[in-house]
Amino acid sequence: MKLRKLQSVKDEDHFYHQGAVELLVFNFLLILTILTIWLFKNHRFRFLHETGGAMVYGLIMGLILRYATAPSDFEIGNVYDCDRLKAGLPTLLVNITNQVYEYQYRREINQLNVNAHQGNAMLQKMTFDPSIFFNVLLPPIIFHAGYSLKKRHFFRNLGSILAYAFLGTAVSCIVIGLIMYGFVKALIHINQLKTGDFHFTDCLLFGSFMSATDPVTVLAIFHELHVDTDLYTLLFGESVLNDAVAIVLTYSISIYSPKENPNTFDAAAFFQSVGNFLGIFAGSFSMGSAYAVVTALLTKFTKLCEFPMLETGLFFLLSWSAFLSAEAAGLTGIVAVLFCGVTQAHYTYNNLSADSKMRTKQLFEFMNFLAENVIFCYMGLALFTFQNHIFNALFIFGAFVAVFIARACNIYPISFILNLGRKQKIPKNFQHMMMFSGLRGAIAFALAIRDTESQPKQMMFTTTLLIVFFTVWVLGGGTTSMLTWLQIRVGIDPDEDQKIETATQAS
Amino acid sequence: MKLRKLQSVKDEDHFYHQGAVELLVFNFLLILTILTIWLFKNHRFRFLHETGGAMVYGLIMGLILRYATAPSDFEIGNVYDCDRLKAGLPTLLVNITNQVYEYQYRREINQLNVNAHQGNAMLQKMTFDPSIFFNVLLPPIIFHAGYSLKKRHFFRNLGSILAYAFLGTAVSCIVIGLIMYGFVKALIHINQLKTGDFHFTDCLLFGSFMSATDPVTVLAIFHELHVDTDLYTLLFGESVLNDAVAIVLTYSISIYSPKENPNTFDAAAFFQSVGNFLGIFAGSFSMGSAYAVVTALLTKFTKLCEFPMLETGLFFLLSWSAFLSAEAAGLTGIVAVLFCGVTQAHYTYNNLSADSKMRTKQLFEFMNFLAENVIFCYMGLALFTFQNHIFNALFIFGAFVAVFIARACNIYPISFILNLGRKQKIPKNFQHMMMFSGLRGAIAFALAIRDTESQPKQMMFTTTLLIVFFTVWVLGGGTTSMLTWLQIRVGIDPDEDQKIETATQAS
Repeated sequence: MKLRKLQSVKDEDHFYHQGAVELLVFNFLLILTILTIWLFKNHRFRFLHETGGAMVYGLIMGLILRYATAPSDFEIGNVYDCDRLKAGLPTLLVNITNQVYEYQYRREINQLNVNAHQGNAMLQKMTFDPSIFFNVLLPPIIFHAGYSLKKRHFFRNLGSILAYAFLGTAVSCIVIGLIMYGFVKALIHINQLKTGDFHFTDCLLFGSFMSATDPVTVLAIFHELHVDTDLYTLLFGESVLNDAVAIVLTYSISIYSPKENPNTFDAAAFFQSVGNFLGIFAGSFSMGSAYAVVTALLTKFTKLCEFPMLETGLFFLLSWSAFLSAEAAGLTGIVAVLFCGVTQAHYTYNNLSADSKMRTKQLFEFMNFLAENVIFCYMGLALFTFQNHIFNALFIFGAFVAVFIARACNIYPISFILNLGRKQKIPKNFQHMMMFSGLRGAIAFALAIRDTESQPKQMMFTTTLLIVFFTVWVLGGGTTSMLTWLQIRVGIDPDEDQKIETATQAS
Repeated sequence: MKLRKLQSVKDEDHFYHQGAVELLVFNFLLILTILTIWLFKNHRFRFLHETGGAMVYGLIMGLILRYATAPSDFEIGNVYDCDRLKAGLPTLLVNITNQVYEYQYRREINQLNVNAHQGNAMLQKMTFDPSIFFNVLLPPIIFHAGYSLKKRHFFRNLGSILAYAFLGTAVSCIVIGLIMYGFVKALIHINQLKTGDFHFTDCLLFGSFMSATDPVTVLAIFHELHVDTDLYTLLFGESVLNDAVAIVLTYSISIYSPKENPNTFDAAAFFQSVGNFLGIFAGSFSMGSAYAVVTALLTKFTKLCEFPMLETGLFFLLSWSAFLSAEAAGLTGIVAVLFCGVTQAHYTYNNLSADSKMRTKQLFEFMNFLAENVIFCYMGLALFTFQNHIFNALFIFGAFVAVFIARACNIYPISFILNLGRKQKIPKNFQHMMMFSGLRGAIAFALAIRDTESQPKQMMFTTTLLIVFFTVWVLGGGTTSMLTWLQIRVGIDPDEDQKIETATQAS
């Protein structure tokens, strides 16, 4: 009866926007976040960054949605057996009592999770498609990171940044993978897991997405307090590039893992993964840079700068095309968009009119701000609205230990090797600060939520969520105290820094 | 076999973005449009506005897609009879050979159009969901129109603008409806239409969406040539408000039309439509203004202006919430967002920091630019990729006649009445220019594409498309010649205009 009514309302209300209520909830959360953050900023209260605040509000809203909404009587989860249907149709036309309805393919569902689909419809609706993270929310964040890279300091520290990003992330991935494999064995031993559920490739996968650091909170505080520019650049550069490395690593490992015999991870598999990694990385890098070079040439050799709106439009569309082309070619768009951003900042930015320089900067800053807060808000929500959480105390404990050890294995040995070659050594207190700043955030979350169909994936997702919460709130909140404790100098004017440097070089 | 392969590729390629190729096509079209427009602007060639250019490129791309792509061998259109299914399930879980797939509800399909679904898969993909127009593309355009309204001149001419927008649009709707009804009767007489296919309410519906004028081309030229500010304001104000009126009119008529007995349109129905119209209009107006007032109060009584990013974010989110709340409440979001924009410009704008003033203006200008060009590009595409066109020469001819006469019945009588009361009369050449500027554009198209299930609706959609093409290219292209011919003064500085005025008032 209720269904019929709903149906007829839908017929009448052509204009009614299905998702309006859900989007409104997010809007309100973001509005609340903005107002709270303003209050904190106004009182120079630095323990909670806006992303942390967004997470708190998300959490509260998730709690309300979970316990205050009645499970609806919507029939959502009945499974219909249709052996006559072919698998994999993108569009399904169904004839029900002489009326044809069109259904669109969304995804495959694991038999295990069918039950979860019979749950609360409101919670259902608040869970959005994981691909939104990769295709809508992450690209502006990553592009902005590339576009706002401080060139001079970045290229001065390029060698070190590349070492941390490539070597460091690989080390981190393997260390986490090995430690987690140990804990998984222990879990199997005490019968909390069955043999065959959790393979070494799963552990490596967990390692690869736990290796994407996102010190957005730390960097915001660094920026505000004008912390030493070299430290800032090292950390920022590492976190930007390491996202790209972690994403491609995850991809390389996941396309490797064979369904027939998922147990083996032999030498051949290893080299295949490395080959995949290099191919995808190089391809995405070239795609992104190529688009940026085209933009640079177009803005240089046309007088487009007389029309800032057209110029900004062209800039935006070509940068977006870099992402889309990489995706269409089977590469990773996010990596392409990152290097597109770096190259745009390096070449195109100088050809733009003063007006466009500001427009593009502000536009991407704004998109970054919104996207970041939406993701962190959603993370808060997901703790209560996601319906397949698997909390396993030992696994979670193991992950915390693994993440800590892996970060140490990344920073200290690599810093030691780098210091052998660097003129300007990386001091001990900088190393400790980098160790401390290994926060996990948007990328780790987006990689974990991509696939939550099997039991190990669900366990990994839950653990990732908790690690993100912990690092953003505890480590993020402790940044200022840590800076004081490690006696890192603050209040540095980067331009003055340069003057001193130039003076030293001249003398 | 091919299907199986496709399926397995999809499994592997987790990162692959389905819509990437289609979005790339649009991106390239827009990039081409921008470059062409730059060339035209550079050579001060004013016969083709960017929207006209976007349409040309869309048309060419549509032609290529239509005739150069092979109809794919995708099985897309088979209809499955499942009487066991209940109608109206939002999510469908189907078990096919022991694998569960999730399908999402898209829409009801008229039996007539099932065949069209068996066509070219590429064309299928390039056709996007009509609700995207209403929920994604139109809101920024309409908000920008409201936000960039020139206050002083607008309120000075408020009476006249309201008369053209409300009375004029209603007159236009009824005149078009009546004339089209005549043509429909003629078509039935010569057996090109069957009795009972096309009702008076359909004609009125056509009238209501053909009454939304969109003189974007004309206004761009006016802006560039600094045409008389009063004429600009009258035309701009009329076109902005008349969109709102046309949308609510369409909605009122469409929710009236009874499925049981669609023939009758009696006095009761008329008053019911008027009541619906007033209720929806007033509700949407209040919703939009209320959000703007909240924004104004928040920006006035907090020191949020110290953080322009937060301020811009709040502004953006609250304006968007106005749209979403109206939609969620069953009102029309577009009307809400229009009045939200007007009120934001009137109150909030003055509380913003200098930085936010520029940021918000540029942000909405940019969104407007992109959305407008996407719509016009899509219109070009739709002529070839839409698969259910019905070209009927007499109906199209009738529509051109009706649109012309209705515009005349709107402008001349109302101007005459207004001139009785106005101190500053609306001169004859202004009236002719307004008559000439009755272009149809994005709104008319969006209203027509909303529903293309039945035969009359398809006929109306095709006709709308042709009227948009004609008016944008021919009338839009002739604007400068028309201005010269009607001897309308150009090159007026609006500020100087005001100085003279103030001086006159003072003396």
